[in-house]
Amino acid sequence: MFNCSTRIRVRYGETDKMGVAHHGAMVTWLEVGRVEWCRAVGVPYSEVEAAGFNMAVAELTVRYMKPIFFDEKITIETVAEKFTARLARFSYRIFNSKQELAVVGSTRHLVVGKTLIRTSLSPELMTRFRRVLEQDA
Amino acid sequence: MFNCSTRIRVRYGETDKMGVAHHGAMVTWLEVGRVEWCRAVGVPYSEVEAAGFNMAVAELTVRYMKPIFFDEKITIETVAEKFTARLARFSYRIFNSKQELAVVGSTRHLVVGKTLIRTSLSPELMTRFRRVLEQDA
Amino acid sequence: MFNCSTRIRVRYGETDKMGVAHHGAMVTWLEVGRVEWCRAVGVPYSEVEAAGFNMAVAELTVRYMKPIFFDEKITIETVAEKFTARLARFSYRIFNSKQELAVVGSTRHLVVGKTLIRTSLSPELMTRFRRVLEQDA
Amino acid sequence: MFNCSTRIRVRYGETDKMGVAHHGAMVTWLEVGRVEWCRAVGVPYSEVEAAGFNMAVAELTVRYMKPIFFDEKITIETVAEKFTARLARFSYRIFNSKQELAVVGSTRHLVVGKTLIRTSLSPELMTRFRRVLEQDA
Repeated sequence: MFNCSTRIRVRYGETDKMGVAHHGAMVTWLEVGRVEWCRAVGVPYSEVEAAGFNMAVAELTVRYMKPIFFDEKITIETVAEKFTARLARFSYRIFNSKQELAVVGSTRHLVVGKTLIRTSLSPELMTRFRRVLEQDA
Repeated sequence: MFNCSTRIRVRYGETDKMGVAHHGAMVTWLEVGRVEWCRAVGVPYSEVEAAGFNMAVAELTVRYMKPIFFDEKITIETVAEKFTARLARFSYRIFNSKQELAVVGSTRHLVVGKTLIRTSLSPELMTRFRRVLEQDA
Repeated sequence: MFNCSTRIRVRYGETDKMGVAHHGAMVTWLEVGRVEWCRAVGVPYSEVEAAGFNMAVAELTVRYMKPIFFDEKITIETVAEKFTARLARFSYRIFNSKQELAVVGSTRHLVVGKTLIRTSLSPELMTRFRRVLEQDA
Repeated sequence: MFNCSTRIRVRYGETDKMGVAHHGAMVTWLEVGRVEWCRAVGVPYSEVEAAGFNMAVAELTVRYMKPIFFDEKITIETVAEKFTARLARFSYRIFNSKQELAVVGSTRHLVVGKTLIRTSLSPELMTRFRRVLEQDA
């Protein structure tokens, strides 16, 4: 399956008094991975929103296996496990700067319109997403 | 002048690896103070927004005098130094749990509409704000 | 079981451009609930840390059932499902200002020392925690 | 003077319900610029800390001139206006994706040791910093 790889640096403000990156900051990194996945498949998330849709987070799971430290250059790998006009499921793996697997996560999303009511992505957007998704199959 | 006092606890996620509250978290506390000031004068900020206005932050200054630690119960004092239909200026003092002055800040705001273009608060909103502001004079 | 109830207001900076509280902010709210649970059972988390221990987050799950909005006064209910000298599991329910169940979450924690190596909470700390935990049984 | 230029993308979680990047997130971006400045002059900030020092933020000013939007690729320019063994002053300019000046900021820092007491950076660290700083003069 298409695996989008993104590299970012751990920011100082993302650490906590334990001396490591805060577990909440890492939730934000999954989002960074997801946004880059959208761009990589050719549909920037800003275009999804401009077309009147949001992919609201309905569920989140994260397993923290190794601490991640300030200023490490980490890698976020993002895969769409499922992607339909009405819902999506992504899985993520975050590697620390030594390429060790540090975090594993997943998110489930529901497509909603501007009023937060469930809806379906437009056929036009789905055609664009499918170009990559079907190469996967 | 009307001085709105708000108490909050320092959250774990607001600390950084220096072992103290991160200076960025404190910017968020000024915002908490400002929102509580609006409520205290009788115009919850959510109503300002519902009426089509935002008070966009145009300038921010903060002086950090003492570190603030995890779990401290701090006090944010907020005063409107200036408040017109088109702009506002607030000043803030944050006290640590020993009532020592730890942070001094100020923000300047411009009233904008939903499209982020400068505008004036409605006469109706201003009447409500003035009730408290004029007692100050 | 002992259920610790905490009330906080949704901050402006916790919202995102969807117009609702960001799903990452809610992870921080679970932490607020957990810290208040510790205080409520008589062992402030700052004392756990002062004794040389951390309860590192090893796993996190969150289900987002209803959006939560700016300035809502929400309630976080926190329960310790399991609490031993080496690990703990908490579950959380967040209610919106209409008392509707909006978010359900859980975290699993490992006790670590200052060097992030797994260890056990001291007998003295466990005695203090047990006073409440055993009333539960 | 040596001007360190850093490019980052605006994250979704950095926006607020006004639909733009939150003014608090931008404070974190200044920090990103400062950390990259340290790396660019050859002294990664993690090494400053490993040597037992912190450069605590004592003052912060930010002027917000244009809104910055989700997913924009922004540029942070960082300059050390002053840098001695005991204190430092940085100035920052943030440009939006159209290369328009959007934010101007400055920070003032005091060198402190691990116990947060004021001290001086070691001669060895200063020698390394000076290599770049003196080229500026």
